[in-house]
Amino acid sequence: MHLNDTIVAAATPTGGAIAIVRIEGPEALAVCDKLFRADRGTLASQAKGYTLMHGNICDGTRRIDDVLVTVFRAPHSYTGGDMVEISCHGSAYIVGEIIRLAIEAGARSATAGEFTMRAFIGGKMDLSQAEAVADVIAADSKAALTMADTQMRGNYSAALATLRGELLTLASLLELELDFGEEEVEFADRTQLTALLHRIESEVEHLADSFAVGNAVKRGIAVAIVGEPNVGKSTLLNRLIGEERAMVSDIAGTTRDTIEECLTIDGVTFRFIDTAGVHQTDDQLENMGIERTRKAIAEAQIVVVMSENGHDNILTDIAEGQKVVRVVNKVDLCDGADVPEGWIGVSAKMGIGIDELVTALRQSVDTSQIMSGGTVVSNSRHYEALLRAGEALRRADEGLQMGLSTDLVAQDIRQVLDHIGAITGEVTNNEILGQIFSKFCIGK
Amino acid sequence: MHLNDTIVAAATPTGGAIAIVRIEGPEALAVCDKLFRADRGTLASQAKGYTLMHGNICDGTRRIDDVLVTVFRAPHSYTGGDMVEISCHGSAYIVGEIIRLAIEAGARSATAGEFTMRAFIGGKMDLSQAEAVADVIAADSKAALTMADTQMRGNYSAALATLRGELLTLASLLELELDFGEEEVEFADRTQLTALLHRIESEVEHLADSFAVGNAVKRGIAVAIVGEPNVGKSTLLNRLIGEERAMVSDIAGTTRDTIEECLTIDGVTFRFIDTAGVHQTDDQLENMGIERTRKAIAEAQIVVVMSENGHDNILTDIAEGQKVVRVVNKVDLCDGADVPEGWIGVSAKMGIGIDELVTALRQSVDTSQIMSGGTVVSNSRHYEALLRAGEALRRADEGLQMGLSTDLVAQDIRQVLDHIGAITGEVTNNEILGQIFSKFCIGK
Repeated sequence: MHLNDTIVAAATPTGGAIAIVRIEGPEALAVCDKLFRADRGTLASQAKGYTLMHGNICDGTRRIDDVLVTVFRAPHSYTGGDMVEISCHGSAYIVGEIIRLAIEAGARSATAGEFTMRAFIGGKMDLSQAEAVADVIAADSKAALTMADTQMRGNYSAALATLRGELLTLASLLELELDFGEEEVEFADRTQLTALLHRIESEVEHLADSFAVGNAVKRGIAVAIVGEPNVGKSTLLNRLIGEERAMVSDIAGTTRDTIEECLTIDGVTFRFIDTAGVHQTDDQLENMGIERTRKAIAEAQIVVVMSENGHDNILTDIAEGQKVVRVVNKVDLCDGADVPEGWIGVSAKMGIGIDELVTALRQSVDTSQIMSGGTVVSNSRHYEALLRAGEALRRADEGLQMGLSTDLVAQDIRQVLDHIGAITGEVTNNEILGQIFSKFCIGK
Repeated sequence: MHLNDTIVAAATPTGGAIAIVRIEGPEALAVCDKLFRADRGTLASQAKGYTLMHGNICDGTRRIDDVLVTVFRAPHSYTGGDMVEISCHGSAYIVGEIIRLAIEAGARSATAGEFTMRAFIGGKMDLSQAEAVADVIAADSKAALTMADTQMRGNYSAALATLRGELLTLASLLELELDFGEEEVEFADRTQLTALLHRIESEVEHLADSFAVGNAVKRGIAVAIVGEPNVGKSTLLNRLIGEERAMVSDIAGTTRDTIEECLTIDGVTFRFIDTAGVHQTDDQLENMGIERTRKAIAEAQIVVVMSENGHDNILTDIAEGQKVVRVVNKVDLCDGADVPEGWIGVSAKMGIGIDELVTALRQSVDTSQIMSGGTVVSNSRHYEALLRAGEALRRADEGLQMGLSTDLVAQDIRQVLDHIGAITGEVTNNEILGQIFSKFCIGK
């Protein structure tokens, strides 16, 4: 929160052809002047915004590298402040030298996420948009990117703003009554108030519910492959990801620890977790593996139950809301079992039925809301705020039903406003900001 | 060698705040137009060179990312051709999508080093300068960068051009005689010719000699730490690099395989190689380790001989030209040996004498030529060319002494010119270019 400081950091990893060093803040152009000699002798501080200059980074008379410098002038920059981007050769040593020179010239090392935090403080984006920047960078699939991009563009913020507007109407109606408290008037029709409250409640609940799919898509849909020992779970994992990732053998219990591999299916990332076979045993090591299997099942969005005979012998509970896909393996064998209704027959070894399984997995995740750019919650901080907002809404609702005094109900509505406002950063504090941006990488 | 193609590649690694995608070639701006929508509706193909545009990368109606596009127009670009750099968020998925869209729009994936190869073919730099670009990116110390930067700026090329000029004078004098061959005139005074030849020979030899230090500085000076078992070699390595890298114990023979760690001392990178203790043993595993020690010694520029008693019991040969630094360890012990003349007394465990050792190591590498921006050969291809040029020069010299016919001597001089010309690329072919640039990373 020291906007008077000028900060510097690498904005790209090193090791490529080029790397970018960013300098931002009120002295960004002056700092640049001290280390950069433009070919034409002009100074960055004299350049207009959106100008590109070629020249050398120099440490006194020693040349460090030839570079391109892009000058951005407030407010037309990522952060809204003065900024330069130095495009140099992609050597860690060169980047280190440029940062050292910038620091000697008066800048300081940027903290994690500080550029984006400045963009938030400077009013270039709200807090949920700033958080989406990190999600955009981490996006590894079409669905994850669409979701993050929708949030970064402010569609999510707009939905929250509408909600806030309705809440403010509600609050102001109630607070108007408070102003006339002694006269015992009721400006707000209780039936209408309740109806509005219920609509907001259902909207908040709907948003909170979207977190299940939003979070899963962002992190990758966890798919636990479970079944009895030696049923072919590792072979299926290898077949799905197209390489010999998991060790396979004819010996039951080959897989001890869980193995995780990702595969993107039609724009959505799935995290397949191969598990140890579940069965009754006294072997201590095996039981440790089975314990891990139970944990993997508990954390999965989808459980692939694998069997050789079409019986579901899984010795652990599937939780409510978890999708189950049932698979009969080894259908290529002469003595293979028939495939019961509701099961998919595959041969992991021969690659039979895999397309059908992949289609079933993909169809069990509804991403229509995400792909259409709808409002989907994928951030656990937002989810928590929505849960708390929901609780306060229910309290307000109960208060109204019970005929509690208007000021108590109004207090609950104010709390809802605070929780919603925390998402977009209208209500915030330095500690929360520090927590949010510390999760960013340095240079963003 | 398809300069009519338009190529695309990522110029930075992903995972940072931003990433850069480069598109280069005659259709670069037209390709960019197909995937980039500028905020102001202008097209990259209508923009002047050195222009920055903000907008979105779109796949039809689907937005991929908001980006900054920098337009470069021939010949004012890295390669000399039309080029755009797209600065997007640093996600591997986004970079992949942009490259995919560029390919769909008519570009193809760039091969390794293709941008720099185009810069060479386009006459923006000669071959030795192009090769220096890779060295600049890989530079990990002040000395390595200074050397690569000197080469990239063309100081090295200038030195070679001078040499080539002198050779051409020599060649033309000899060839003039050939034109008048039947008249048996001697335009060139044999004494003067020989003097010129010797001067060029000594210059080529001087350059070739500089490869020893140039290559070592580029790769990191290899320092083998050798001595009897349990003398404290691993403890010294850990002390030098400031962390517990190598496993240490009181048991002789703890280190089996060689361990290598880097440390930069006063602008020069040293690669310290901890080795298994050398002694007579029948243990097969130990003897394998000792064999590796011998190999490490053979490849080292500096050998640190470590002893507890100031006796040099090393059971292997130090080659000519290798520097030896002798160290008595455990001087902190009461019963420690006296430190003989020419040895450095240290306690690796207590950190005594380490500064003195570090100073001795640094002083054993003369980098004055490098640091002053002198011409130093660090590229093994150049070294080989110089060796061959030297051989041809000696043949020409001998030919002159033996009074061989002028055309034979002139042939040798032409060979020298070819070898020198191969360094800067005046004499080259596609195969050589392919070999050189395939060692680059893609995107450079």
